[in-house]
Amino acid sequence: MYRHFEEVEGELKNQILFMGSLAEEMIHLAVQGLVERKKEPLCHVAQNEERVNRLHIDVDNRCLNLIALYQPAATDLRFIIAAIKINSDLERIGDQAVNISQTTELLLSQPQLERKLLDIPRMAELAQNMLRDSLDAFVKKDVALARTVLARDAEEDQLKSEAFNELMQLMQSDASTIQRALGLILIARNLERVADHATNIAEDVIFMALGQDIRHHAEDAAG
Amino acid sequence: MYRHFEEVEGELKNQILFMGSLAEEMIHLAVQGLVERKKEPLCHVAQNEERVNRLHIDVDNRCLNLIALYQPAATDLRFIIAAIKINSDLERIGDQAVNISQTTELLLSQPQLERKLLDIPRMAELAQNMLRDSLDAFVKKDVALARTVLARDAEEDQLKSEAFNELMQLMQSDASTIQRALGLILIARNLERVADHATNIAEDVIFMALGQDIRHHAEDAAG
Repeated sequence: MYRHFEEVEGELKNQILFMGSLAEEMIHLAVQGLVERKKEPLCHVAQNEERVNRLHIDVDNRCLNLIALYQPAATDLRFIIAAIKINSDLERIGDQAVNISQTTELLLSQPQLERKLLDIPRMAELAQNMLRDSLDAFVKKDVALARTVLARDAEEDQLKSEAFNELMQLMQSDASTIQRALGLILIARNLERVADHATNIAEDVIFMALGQDIRHHAEDAAG
Repeated sequence: MYRHFEEVEGELKNQILFMGSLAEEMIHLAVQGLVERKKEPLCHVAQNEERVNRLHIDVDNRCLNLIALYQPAATDLRFIIAAIKINSDLERIGDQAVNISQTTELLLSQPQLERKLLDIPRMAELAQNMLRDSLDAFVKKDVALARTVLARDAEEDQLKSEAFNELMQLMQSDASTIQRALGLILIARNLERVADHATNIAEDVIFMALGQDIRHHAEDAAG
């Protein structure tokens, strides 16, 4: 039964949005476990991962079928190719959340570091907002919104560098903190990777909407 | 002028292979700089990155044009979709090499750690072999070879964990080593990510060849 492309496009958008909300929740839960020193949110990370992994396969198959069935050209084809790429990024964001959750589990088995979690909660919030806006830009084909995501990536990098330096100083001043500080460094790096994936998504949105590849120019402009 | 799909497929394979050889060389050069304590190889990393980034855009455009022009189905379509995904992985392998190169530059500005580089050269060699074989499997549509790549990923993870633990102990026993040991930890993690990308490529090859999605089953099997 033939349906209009707009209809199947709408379904694909919804599936990507749902997958994105699961991935975002995984980041939220992993960092919640860290901040509140609770194991319970970490269990939900593992549950969400299974769902994200199943969606990852579903979305790829759906996109392949759409290309084979509709033989789309120009904008419609670029939309599906963008969906395939975004699908990979979302799955990898889920992997980052799993890494954060695993490191958090190790950290919870040890006494809390006196030094606060620095800007890690802020890094998580920024990365989640970037992810949400990049997907919002995807479904609305909103290039201006996608560009705001690109602009925020430098802030995330800056926060990661600051956390990195403070934690290294802490390790140098007190060897008993090394293992825990290293855990936080790795978590900061995971969050930076989440922001990188959101940036990739925003770049794919711009490519999809304009048929222009801004990826490596954007990187150059950001230094 | 219409050409047979096999012909354009061959060109796309060659372009991906060339891009892969550049990415592999970037890893080799970055680790060579680290092992031999020389800055010169690091300059070539930056040069290769520009070429990889240009190829990244070219390959994506070529794939989009191929789909629009040939409207391929089944195996041919899966081949092009695999090429699009492999293209992203190669570009990100290049990014990992750039990260290794930047960390190496910092390490070269400080006295060499007494402790050797542990298994970092071996990790680099393993990751490079995995990358080479995954691309070889892609062009030959060789599922058995792709499966050997998946099997090797656990070894890379093991080497990373060992390096990680030894370096943490070193930091704990001598605070003056913290910054340098942390640099090596980050490099070990970059190499692990290169092996992950090679694993992604091998999974895409199996999907392309068999029309079967083994991705998350493979992850489950590997623990």
